[in-house]
Amino acid sequence: MSPNSELQTQLDEASRDYEEFASRGLKLDITRGKPSPEQLDLAGDLLTAVTADDVITPSGVDARNYGGLEGLVELREIFAPLLKIPTDQLLAGGNASLTFMAQALTFATMHGTAADDRPWGEGPRKLLCPVPGYDRHFALTESLGFELLSIPMDEEGPVIAEAQRLAEDASVKGMWLVPMYSNPTGITISPKRAAKLAAMPAAASDFTLLWDNAYGVHHLRDEHVENIDILNLCAEAGNPERPWIFASTSKITLAGAGVSFFGGGPLSVDWMKTNLGKISIGPDKVNQLRHVRFFGDSAGVEAHMRKHAEIIAPKFDAVLDALESAFGDSDLARWTRPDGGYFITLTTMEGIADRVVKLAAEAGVKLTPAGATHPYGLDPANNVIRIAPTMPVLEEVELAAQGLVACLKLASYEKLLAG
Amino acid sequence: MSPNSELQTQLDEASRDYEEFASRGLKLDITRGKPSPEQLDLAGDLLTAVTADDVITPSGVDARNYGGLEGLVELREIFAPLLKIPTDQLLAGGNASLTFMAQALTFATMHGTAADDRPWGEGPRKLLCPVPGYDRHFALTESLGFELLSIPMDEEGPVIAEAQRLAEDASVKGMWLVPMYSNPTGITISPKRAAKLAAMPAAASDFTLLWDNAYGVHHLRDEHVENIDILNLCAEAGNPERPWIFASTSKITLAGAGVSFFGGGPLSVDWMKTNLGKISIGPDKVNQLRHVRFFGDSAGVEAHMRKHAEIIAPKFDAVLDALESAFGDSDLARWTRPDGGYFITLTTMEGIADRVVKLAAEAGVKLTPAGATHPYGLDPANNVIRIAPTMPVLEEVELAAQGLVACLKLASYEKLLAG
Repeated sequence: MSPNSELQTQLDEASRDYEEFASRGLKLDITRGKPSPEQLDLAGDLLTAVTADDVITPSGVDARNYGGLEGLVELREIFAPLLKIPTDQLLAGGNASLTFMAQALTFATMHGTAADDRPWGEGPRKLLCPVPGYDRHFALTESLGFELLSIPMDEEGPVIAEAQRLAEDASVKGMWLVPMYSNPTGITISPKRAAKLAAMPAAASDFTLLWDNAYGVHHLRDEHVENIDILNLCAEAGNPERPWIFASTSKITLAGAGVSFFGGGPLSVDWMKTNLGKISIGPDKVNQLRHVRFFGDSAGVEAHMRKHAEIIAPKFDAVLDALESAFGDSDLARWTRPDGGYFITLTTMEGIADRVVKLAAEAGVKLTPAGATHPYGLDPANNVIRIAPTMPVLEEVELAAQGLVACLKLASYEKLLAG
Repeated sequence: MSPNSELQTQLDEASRDYEEFASRGLKLDITRGKPSPEQLDLAGDLLTAVTADDVITPSGVDARNYGGLEGLVELREIFAPLLKIPTDQLLAGGNASLTFMAQALTFATMHGTAADDRPWGEGPRKLLCPVPGYDRHFALTESLGFELLSIPMDEEGPVIAEAQRLAEDASVKGMWLVPMYSNPTGITISPKRAAKLAAMPAAASDFTLLWDNAYGVHHLRDEHVENIDILNLCAEAGNPERPWIFASTSKITLAGAGVSFFGGGPLSVDWMKTNLGKISIGPDKVNQLRHVRFFGDSAGVEAHMRKHAEIIAPKFDAVLDALESAFGDSDLARWTRPDGGYFITLTTMEGIADRVVKLAAEAGVKLTPAGATHPYGLDPANNVIRIAPTMPVLEEVELAAQGLVACLKLASYEKLLAG
């Protein structure tokens, strides 16, 4: 049999499998990193952790009234060791770390930073974006007038040589990074790579690491790496104000009703407080007090996260098993095998990611649009697909993975045959 | 007795009264417009209005998960008639209307408005500030680079002739206004004056009314005026995008843990949603659902506000009675007699407001710093004092009013004798 007729046979088989799958008329959605209702149920007791009779915090603050810009100290104490940020360099805010990011970046654009009071908005401004990355990071900073420069990631994190080369331009003000279980690769930056980022020369005196530690306690396995103390690494390298650290409990307690965190060097935290003081009288302390009581202490957070892992690790494994079983002995695809976070990145043959997403949509499996993982929605190799397995129930994840395999096979053989 | 020796006698008596008051070593605080714990207790049931078993909104949304940028429709339906804003032109947000104000003004500064896409930040920008006004308005817009231009208020609201003259400058982008029970005067703008503001010519094509309706349902008396339909007035005048309306439940339910509102013309609401979509995945819907259940409907809000009035009207009356009794037949002072809101404005003889505040502080009564009611903290006549009677218990308000009277008498006679 000629290679082409063998391929044609494989294509025919893939086509039949795809049609068979599509004919089932399923409606599955693995697009967004949302917790499932079962995960949200884990935080059921949070909702009634503050009642009319017990509105006073341990340190004696009426959580219901105005004030307390930095957030409840008891909440900051719980998360300080988990995030490796001293309590007095950690602020607790409202329900969205994305809003903290927007605020910090807006302050820098309008007023300059703690390290350099020249507003970023006075001239051209650029940010380094390790790809694949998080679409909301890109959309936010594009809206604030930043030019987004893609830099590659390897298995230890962003490639330093490329970052350093680009940072020779003083209009490059910083770099996005999800250090642990990155969205969407699941890759965790190595301590060595983090130390290099902390010490990396940069033309901008206030080159800033936008350290979005969204998944810092979101381990899937009992054995896991530790959060990196980026504050200390940067301070040791003589760049104490370099990192802005963001985190939230959106994927710990409730996705719409959690609490967020900002950490940084001592001057950056003062700078943030001064600027926040113009736009807010303080965060929702009642919801913060709920979190304090619900967790009790740092160990309480870790115990809670193990319950999440019990729910979502099987969903990750369902996708990974389906991919391994279908493509383990081929070179049609590769994929990441995360030990935490919310995403798996699937890398297809070049040029077919959008075709896979389209086939999947037509077969009832909604995938994140191809390109969403790159600045401006443009994946130049058109080969990256983000898989978010947490939201559907396990059976649906298994079905969606089956469908994904069928789509990927079909698109791959089409491509190979087209040559 | 010569006028001077009569004055000296009055001064001596005032001095003795002051010393007597100071010697009591009280610690009283009537500085900020904070609700009292007793008022916050009124919302006790709010805290447990959402429990683990009932997290779904009437329209079927899981309040715990991501999404829903515009806020829960059921909450917007409750407040729409109260604020005179159609539900689909009303957004419900997080715990602070000040943050909504900061966001809208920042978007306009960076990206332009719905009515004109030229960013306000591209050139000089100014705002009209009716005085006396709200210190946080002034601090926010000063931080965003606006020059603040004071304009006078009379008993119907801001003086139009002066506003119109200043608005001939295209760099004047808008005007602050607390339309009902203004902070700090308690004055409510008249419908006629509001219509004039809606129709007022302005050089800036997107001249914006920053309509901060912080006290729109905060009546002290059973009989009260109605909220003005500024959206309709502006639309009728051909300026449908002129008003941005802000409100919150900070002084309805919980001061730190309420919900906020933004309303405007149809294009402005779309503009706000588009911009908010870059910086947030959505507000805390769980807290919004608490509010939906706690109030039930618009009448529930009004009934709740009557309970507030029962608590705070006597505190206002305590201050007003003390002032009337001491100065009712003199021209040493005048003051506003609000029918709602959180403040009374006391106008002293020129040049002594700071002296009164200092005397009060030394006698154990903390007053808002003189000047805080004016842009840049500068009250040119040095004669405005803001009184916030809600937070202390009634007995303390009575004592503070006594102390205030003693300080004002002493400072007035000092001035007259020096004069």
